[in-house]
Amino acid sequence: MEAYLSAPSRPSVTLSEFSGRRVCQTKRNDSLLGARGRFAPGTWERVVLGRRGGSRTVSRLPQVRATATAGVSLVKPKQTGNAFADLCINSIRFLAVDAVEKANSGHPGAPMGQAPLAFTLWDKYLRFNPKNPNWVNRDRFVLSCGHGSMLQYALLYLYGYDQPTMDDIKTFCEFGSCATSHPENFLLPGVEVTTGPLGSGVAQAVGLAIAEAHLGAMFNTPEEKLIDHYTYFIMSDGCMQEGVAAEAASLAGHLGLGKLIGFFDDNKITYDGPTDLAFSEDVVSRFKSYNWQVISIADGNTDIDNISKAIEEAQKDLTRPSLIIVPTTIGFGSPKHANKRTAHGEPFGSDEVKATRENLGWKYAPFEVPEEVLKHCRRKIQEGARLEQEWNELLQRYKSKHPEQAALFERMVIRKEKSPGWEKALKDCAAKTGSMATRQVSGAMLNALAAVMPEIIGGSADLAPSNNTLLKGFGDFSRNNYKAKNMRFGVREAAMTAITAGIKLHNTGLFPYCATFLIFTDYARGMLRLAALSEAGITFITTHDSVALGEDGPTHQPIEHLASLRAMPNVYTFRPCDANECAAGYALSIRHDDKVVLLALTRQKTNKLETSSYDGALRGAYVVSDNSPAGKHPDVILIGTGSEVDVVVEAADQLRTSDALNVRVVSMPCMELFEDQDAAYQESVLPAAVPRSRRVVCEAASSFGWSKYADHFVCIDRFGASGKGPDLMKYFGITPSNVAKKAREAAGKGV
Amino acid sequence: MEAYLSAPSRPSVTLSEFSGRRVCQTKRNDSLLGARGRFAPGTWERVVLGRRGGSRTVSRLPQVRATATAGVSLVKPKQTGNAFADLCINSIRFLAVDAVEKANSGHPGAPMGQAPLAFTLWDKYLRFNPKNPNWVNRDRFVLSCGHGSMLQYALLYLYGYDQPTMDDIKTFCEFGSCATSHPENFLLPGVEVTTGPLGSGVAQAVGLAIAEAHLGAMFNTPEEKLIDHYTYFIMSDGCMQEGVAAEAASLAGHLGLGKLIGFFDDNKITYDGPTDLAFSEDVVSRFKSYNWQVISIADGNTDIDNISKAIEEAQKDLTRPSLIIVPTTIGFGSPKHANKRTAHGEPFGSDEVKATRENLGWKYAPFEVPEEVLKHCRRKIQEGARLEQEWNELLQRYKSKHPEQAALFERMVIRKEKSPGWEKALKDCAAKTGSMATRQVSGAMLNALAAVMPEIIGGSADLAPSNNTLLKGFGDFSRNNYKAKNMRFGVREAAMTAITAGIKLHNTGLFPYCATFLIFTDYARGMLRLAALSEAGITFITTHDSVALGEDGPTHQPIEHLASLRAMPNVYTFRPCDANECAAGYALSIRHDDKVVLLALTRQKTNKLETSSYDGALRGAYVVSDNSPAGKHPDVILIGTGSEVDVVVEAADQLRTSDALNVRVVSMPCMELFEDQDAAYQESVLPAAVPRSRRVVCEAASSFGWSKYADHFVCIDRFGASGKGPDLMKYFGITPSNVAKKAREAAGKGV
Repeated sequence: MEAYLSAPSRPSVTLSEFSGRRVCQTKRNDSLLGARGRFAPGTWERVVLGRRGGSRTVSRLPQVRATATAGVSLVKPKQTGNAFADLCINSIRFLAVDAVEKANSGHPGAPMGQAPLAFTLWDKYLRFNPKNPNWVNRDRFVLSCGHGSMLQYALLYLYGYDQPTMDDIKTFCEFGSCATSHPENFLLPGVEVTTGPLGSGVAQAVGLAIAEAHLGAMFNTPEEKLIDHYTYFIMSDGCMQEGVAAEAASLAGHLGLGKLIGFFDDNKITYDGPTDLAFSEDVVSRFKSYNWQVISIADGNTDIDNISKAIEEAQKDLTRPSLIIVPTTIGFGSPKHANKRTAHGEPFGSDEVKATRENLGWKYAPFEVPEEVLKHCRRKIQEGARLEQEWNELLQRYKSKHPEQAALFERMVIRKEKSPGWEKALKDCAAKTGSMATRQVSGAMLNALAAVMPEIIGGSADLAPSNNTLLKGFGDFSRNNYKAKNMRFGVREAAMTAITAGIKLHNTGLFPYCATFLIFTDYARGMLRLAALSEAGITFITTHDSVALGEDGPTHQPIEHLASLRAMPNVYTFRPCDANECAAGYALSIRHDDKVVLLALTRQKTNKLETSSYDGALRGAYVVSDNSPAGKHPDVILIGTGSEVDVVVEAADQLRTSDALNVRVVSMPCMELFEDQDAAYQESVLPAAVPRSRRVVCEAASSFGWSKYADHFVCIDRFGASGKGPDLMKYFGITPSNVAKKAREAAGKGV
Repeated sequence: MEAYLSAPSRPSVTLSEFSGRRVCQTKRNDSLLGARGRFAPGTWERVVLGRRGGSRTVSRLPQVRATATAGVSLVKPKQTGNAFADLCINSIRFLAVDAVEKANSGHPGAPMGQAPLAFTLWDKYLRFNPKNPNWVNRDRFVLSCGHGSMLQYALLYLYGYDQPTMDDIKTFCEFGSCATSHPENFLLPGVEVTTGPLGSGVAQAVGLAIAEAHLGAMFNTPEEKLIDHYTYFIMSDGCMQEGVAAEAASLAGHLGLGKLIGFFDDNKITYDGPTDLAFSEDVVSRFKSYNWQVISIADGNTDIDNISKAIEEAQKDLTRPSLIIVPTTIGFGSPKHANKRTAHGEPFGSDEVKATRENLGWKYAPFEVPEEVLKHCRRKIQEGARLEQEWNELLQRYKSKHPEQAALFERMVIRKEKSPGWEKALKDCAAKTGSMATRQVSGAMLNALAAVMPEIIGGSADLAPSNNTLLKGFGDFSRNNYKAKNMRFGVREAAMTAITAGIKLHNTGLFPYCATFLIFTDYARGMLRLAALSEAGITFITTHDSVALGEDGPTHQPIEHLASLRAMPNVYTFRPCDANECAAGYALSIRHDDKVVLLALTRQKTNKLETSSYDGALRGAYVVSDNSPAGKHPDVILIGTGSEVDVVVEAADQLRTSDALNVRVVSMPCMELFEDQDAAYQESVLPAAVPRSRRVVCEAASSFGWSKYADHFVCIDRFGASGKGPDLMKYFGITPSNVAKKAREAAGKGV
């Protein structure tokens, strides 16, 4: 049960029941402090302040004596006091309650608590065109706590988007519905980014805000601000605990992303129960320490006026991102579940749905939205059309004044066409690039691309000189230079990845990349997968791709990473052997806006092959050489990737010379891409007549997954070691002579 | 070049050159603020405060006018002023410089900056016995910025550990040396945990401190504190940026781990360059917001007295962890590299090594340690022996007063023997457990184990009710109850994993587990790998292991996770089909202290098989049923894991009945374990006479990696979808009829 105290002497005091304890919150020194005590039912006495956050900000409040007066209701919680606003807010709440109830799945609690803040934001501030969810200059909205997806669906429905329809909402969570358990951008226009994994939305929102800042700096003039919008997100207690959100918030503060505005739905309940089981941060101080403006609302259930004021205050500070802390009640209005973990992931059951209706005075049938609410909200259809129309006029003015920039804007941002010349740039670069580490090749190609592709932007997680990812002459993206193209992500691989996905999902033609050592994709894996699922076709540059990196040892030497990335859907794991193949890797990424392309590059030098092929690499695998007589199949096939193509080429030379074997060498930079090819092409490279028993794979990595193509492996199925690269390659047996030995066995020629 | 200003009117002001800018730092309001300006060489004027940290704590300092006086030296940096301390400190520095130089690899900069703080800690405070690195009650020391490993090797050598020897140090980074590029606990006693991936050491240190607190609560009496030690760590700017460190620090503050003391080596340089490229947090506020005591040192290069005071202050506060912020100069003493990113990962070259020797007044030959330093430091051999002797006497008193507890202590903590009865508990539990979700089975088994294994401790990343990981009646581990056994990790998967590894690597007999959904191992993957590499045999419980989890949709449905975990060395990925196999999974983990065992468990009910086998499961795979006549091989073999064993069993029934086929059903809960078995056993389960072309694998996950055992798959090679579990299994084709169809094809019986 929920109780509110109108205490004139303490206007911001809220009392509520909280897993058996009565909680008092009061605004003090700009931050919300929690005060807890035990109370007799209906009576509120001896409120003693408990610990919350840093010890410095915690102090003992004077004792408060409060009794259940007319202002306190244990049954009918106080709502906003604005009858029409309550009607709208409860429309959101009951769409969530009814949909979850019908689906017998989903999370009703969060939408019930977040409805007032979300309504305030969407109704008064969010700029969008419901009939064109892709309008370029719309505000972006991200629900980082994606399990409360019904909040977003209710908003999209009320405000006049074509999807979800009421039928979609009625089939919430059912197979085939676009109203899925978590918002999925690839199913539902109006959903900017996919969320669910906690914290991910915060980081993706930072990416959206970076894209906005960068495009604004690229295109805006003082008179024509073509790209000028806010990015809003809602984060939960769970998001607040995830490291990825901390990384992203720190970088956002560093970059001073003033148009990024977050709401912290501070309901103090996570899945396990009260947050104080595991969390007692002073969130206000923490976000201030990141250089955020922090604004605290006293009561997010009732105080929509202050939510409005907070949004306006947040909008005004263009030098810092803002976090608005909104204490809400999870499951607001449910007599049984409010403020309890049971509001989190359980449907209420029909009795409790009924009781909640009574408690909030909701007289409408399931899925019924009051006419006046719909009418009010759908004014946004006209408003949104007008906003877009005004923006179109702005674009026309811009075109007449800045025709060249406008042409770029239209091609890149509107039509999302890649800049012409990228393929020539890649091929030219490949042609003039000799034998060198593929990470160096990659650096040259990135710079070649940057010269012709203004849409490029990206960087590394503090390994730029090692990853060779710096774009020379393009500056460091910073609070003072949003036009610059080198992102400095800091040592924050997870946030980097989600931010890069967010830049891509801004869906304005940018071509973002990020980079780290291959091993440290492990830090980013959750966000990498989310990018792949979200069809955010980012380019992920990884270097130091095998034990050949040498001295840094097993903590830095990838073994299972290629396999584990190949196993991930919607990712092309691309391991080029030289410049021609590296160019193909970039081409693959430029061509596929909806696929993650991960390049695995060497630290050490590799040879440029005379017979390596851009076109062949773009089919995933191809024949590098074959000394079999015409019409005859080879005795053995040697398959290599990346730096190990050199190894199999040398092994093939040995076998052809010393053993008079017919040997085919296949380079397979991208297994997944090869599997996309038709059966005839696959057969032309790996004929069934040369079965797996006569094929050898060499890759300085786990053999896991290679059984599909060969029975013999020169691979590494254990952790690495410290030592010089060449010594390690020898120690782990990644040598031409070992490949040749296995090949002789495979060819039945003895050892 | 480095310059120091002795300004009597501003005792805490430090001026230093910082990538071309001169930096002024001053202590103000308990926090260090940076002031930057440009200065004429040798002159320090018009110091203007730049932005650092939250805007609230930044203000404009009065202008400072300072000229190069006697107190300022651009060439000879001020050292501690204590000649003998400098001798010791420089011994550490030059071991690092000389080793890195000889290896032509490694990071000299961090050890040179950290030497004063590390010397102060090790010399005056750290309690250890060099001749018994495993003495149970030693203080734990963790170098989270593991790339500065030479610091730790120098300390171990100076203070009299048997390893590394001087020869080891001279072969730093060479293949076979125990002085590897990053500290590796599995190579070198005295290294508590393996570090290198940034931030990981902070989280592992939290685990060590939790183990200390828990064992203290289990065993200590007011008179006999058997387990009573500090855990110290050093973290770098890079560690400070990683999300895993943020998660761990937040939890440590929440838990009030007062014996955890960290040093932040605040040298403001990361690999890319000055930290202000990507980082401008107010670290003081941030850690205070986590409920840490924060102590700032003005100058970590010179002020070892204040470092001492800070350590003592940190030791005194037993209610909060402490962070000591120590501004240091990376590459201290190197004329060319000090305060530059080049100090980070590059050997100096002989000229610069010479110049550094001159600059610091170091007269000794490479790898030469002054006699008096060795003599001084190695007093710790005697001291350490005495400490352990005193502790042994304490243990004797404890034994006489508390014989029962002492017996447990000796068995568990000293001898590290598992509690007797665990296997009976598992088998009894399996016997009485019927058909249910394997996550429920697991919950029952954890509780059965907890009843007989006082060494158990663990929990979930805020999914305890879903992961079924709560130990009933054992309380929540909290600042008020360190004896409790349920860890509440919060939504912090990465920190949870590293913390759990840290508990294990406390090496005192604890049996720690952690838990989340299988999908969210992605957040933890880097730390999971590190645990595997470190031979930290934790039990990782994952539930909701396939699309059958249903409505939560593709963000929550693992596809590639089983494959990507099977590819990881030193991990047993164990997917039981029922209670007998689940018991085997736990047994596997209990038996292997050096292997990560990851259990993949269902959300949905599975059938308990009549023929499932604990012993069979402990061989990784076994025959569940086979209707072939004696001495005949089956026509087809169906292989299933986990919930899909039910599917293949039903398919086999169909094939035997309708198609009169001889069908073998194999359950393979653990591919890696099966691969550990001898060839004869493997042949007995999967005979070569029934080749892959006559085998079908069914697993509701990626087929990646299964080609080793079969050519036919009923698997899922794409992302999941929202919907009801059974509907999804049907949609993705994970059905007995699909398996039967593939089996008919495999058996050559047409469709």
